[in-house]
Amino acid sequence: MTPANASFQTLIGLLEGAATIGIVSHRRPDGDALGSCLALGASLAAIGKTVHIVNDDPVPDGLGFLPGSEAIRVAATVVAGGALPVDVLVSLDAAGADRLSETAWAAFALAEGGVRINIDHHISNTRFADYNYVDAISPATGQIIYELIEAAGWPLPEGARVALYAAISTDTGSFRYPSATGQTYRIAASLIDAGLDVGEVNRQLYESYPLRRLLLLRDLLQDLEIHADGRVVAVKLTRRMAEAAGLQAGDTEGIIDVIRSVDSVIVAILFEEMEDGKIRVSSRSKSPRADVGAICAVFGGGGHTLAAGTRMAGPIDAAATRFLHEVSQRLDGLD
Amino acid sequence: MTPANASFQTLIGLLEGAATIGIVSHRRPDGDALGSCLALGASLAAIGKTVHIVNDDPVPDGLGFLPGSEAIRVAATVVAGGALPVDVLVSLDAAGADRLSETAWAAFALAEGGVRINIDHHISNTRFADYNYVDAISPATGQIIYELIEAAGWPLPEGARVALYAAISTDTGSFRYPSATGQTYRIAASLIDAGLDVGEVNRQLYESYPLRRLLLLRDLLQDLEIHADGRVVAVKLTRRMAEAAGLQAGDTEGIIDVIRSVDSVIVAILFEEMEDGKIRVSSRSKSPRADVGAICAVFGGGGHTLAAGTRMAGPIDAAATRFLHEVSQRLDGLD
Repeated sequence: MTPANASFQTLIGLLEGAATIGIVSHRRPDGDALGSCLALGASLAAIGKTVHIVNDDPVPDGLGFLPGSEAIRVAATVVAGGALPVDVLVSLDAAGADRLSETAWAAFALAEGGVRINIDHHISNTRFADYNYVDAISPATGQIIYELIEAAGWPLPEGARVALYAAISTDTGSFRYPSATGQTYRIAASLIDAGLDVGEVNRQLYESYPLRRLLLLRDLLQDLEIHADGRVVAVKLTRRMAEAAGLQAGDTEGIIDVIRSVDSVIVAILFEEMEDGKIRVSSRSKSPRADVGAICAVFGGGGHTLAAGTRMAGPIDAAATRFLHEVSQRLDGLD
Repeated sequence: MTPANASFQTLIGLLEGAATIGIVSHRRPDGDALGSCLALGASLAAIGKTVHIVNDDPVPDGLGFLPGSEAIRVAATVVAGGALPVDVLVSLDAAGADRLSETAWAAFALAEGGVRINIDHHISNTRFADYNYVDAISPATGQIIYELIEAAGWPLPEGARVALYAAISTDTGSFRYPSATGQTYRIAASLIDAGLDVGEVNRQLYESYPLRRLLLLRDLLQDLEIHADGRVVAVKLTRRMAEAAGLQAGDTEGIIDVIRSVDSVIVAILFEEMEDGKIRVSSRSKSPRADVGAICAVFGGGGHTLAAGTRMAGPIDAAATRFLHEVSQRLDGLD
């Protein structure tokens, strides 16, 4: 039996009762992770709370425009200076405690009687905290944060509006994924009505890529792999390509959506050779019957049915062959 | 002085008073043009009207999924069989009567006392009809059609919901452009609440490109031109490339958005060599201070401040040089 969620009223009481609140999210944070942290942080700051936001990794270039992101601290740096005392520690958009390093958890010293809260939208969430709120129907953790702030009646400063829009937009592929609901669009409408500059935030999110990313796309398309009668497409990003392009964190964000856009494609895959020689695999499916979450689980990874990832041992060509074999076996069962 | 718009009540009265209604839009119809025609057509059919939708060009492959699109007739074919008698003729999303060929107008025989209605969201609309409704604030003609249908209390069949979502989404770059308002998002929310399968329609709109389009993107990026310190990017699509790729109408839709996505870019341009040797220019700007509508007007074209087009005499390299010269002159005035 799935344990029940803590109620919004319980969470609101815990947060309102705290003086100092820590907020964390998963490593390699994306728009939903950072947007959710910044929105909740800005709203809590507006009611007088002291808020510390910490992440394993620095804010990627493409999300540096999010208001308040300059105050997000890197876990290793915090730990070096001594853990931050907090009354409540909130984890956002992290499906398990292991989505953060031990260093990130060690960045906080929870007060005696202090509690940990876990708010997330991943169905695989392990409910690792004292109070858990998991809504797998919500297309983004940012949508839950909006609803929490609205239920609490806390202010939603301009920066929080931008952060929530970014969180929801990036986790729904710009409001396109099947996970987007009427409520998702209504939240965006209310943010715009409250003054959000929708053109500007979208320019920052989707029209502010470095030139090197477009040139990388060009290079990846040169060696586009088409398998299974066009139902599977894959690209491989080697260290050599990444170094030649001067690639930085976040540059590959969205690349997979470009190759997924072909009509015949059911599964799209990006293989990325990491600095440590491991191969990071990002996969997207267009059909619930081709469950990339299950495929990635075979290799120790996970995620959602239509979007999942894993890490594999290198070299990249061997990893790709193994992963593609697993994909084609599953596709054989489909018409 | 700008003449006043006809009221919705007037338009509703005219349409409800007609037995047979013709609906047209501009040649080379896009998502907003066809989506608006199909939505209004489906809604009017649901109240018992006979509706004929005609266009100069066939429905492009990528929009063939729109319910009812198979009933849209090509003007030349209609004319060959004799003009269709109608009581009211409605033009949607066409800024001027010349956005349709004379053949398209000749596809209809307007009854004695019959009227022409013009509904559009282009600020440059010439108000060419007997009754005109131009709302340049609306990000899509589809948004006006939604509001008209809602004001009339006409039914909105499932096909009309898909058509309206497609119209609005495609004309706002998936709800990203500055023109999108809270109302735009609320309309999408209401369509979803009424049963629209948002994942499916977006899959059809944005994940169903033919493979040849991805390969075309690859080829265009090979020769990406970067001008004015990265503020201007341009690609040239020659007849030879188009023929080698087996390109069809609509294949280049959205290509310009890919090259516009670079942070340094203010103006992005696609030059396309047409079968008749003319060069079709599509341009997008990220800044109202770089008004591509004004730049295209220099060459006899037009459009919006941030999205405009024109046709020029070939050859393609000479046309590109002339157009880029005009762009760089305007950019020199910006910091």
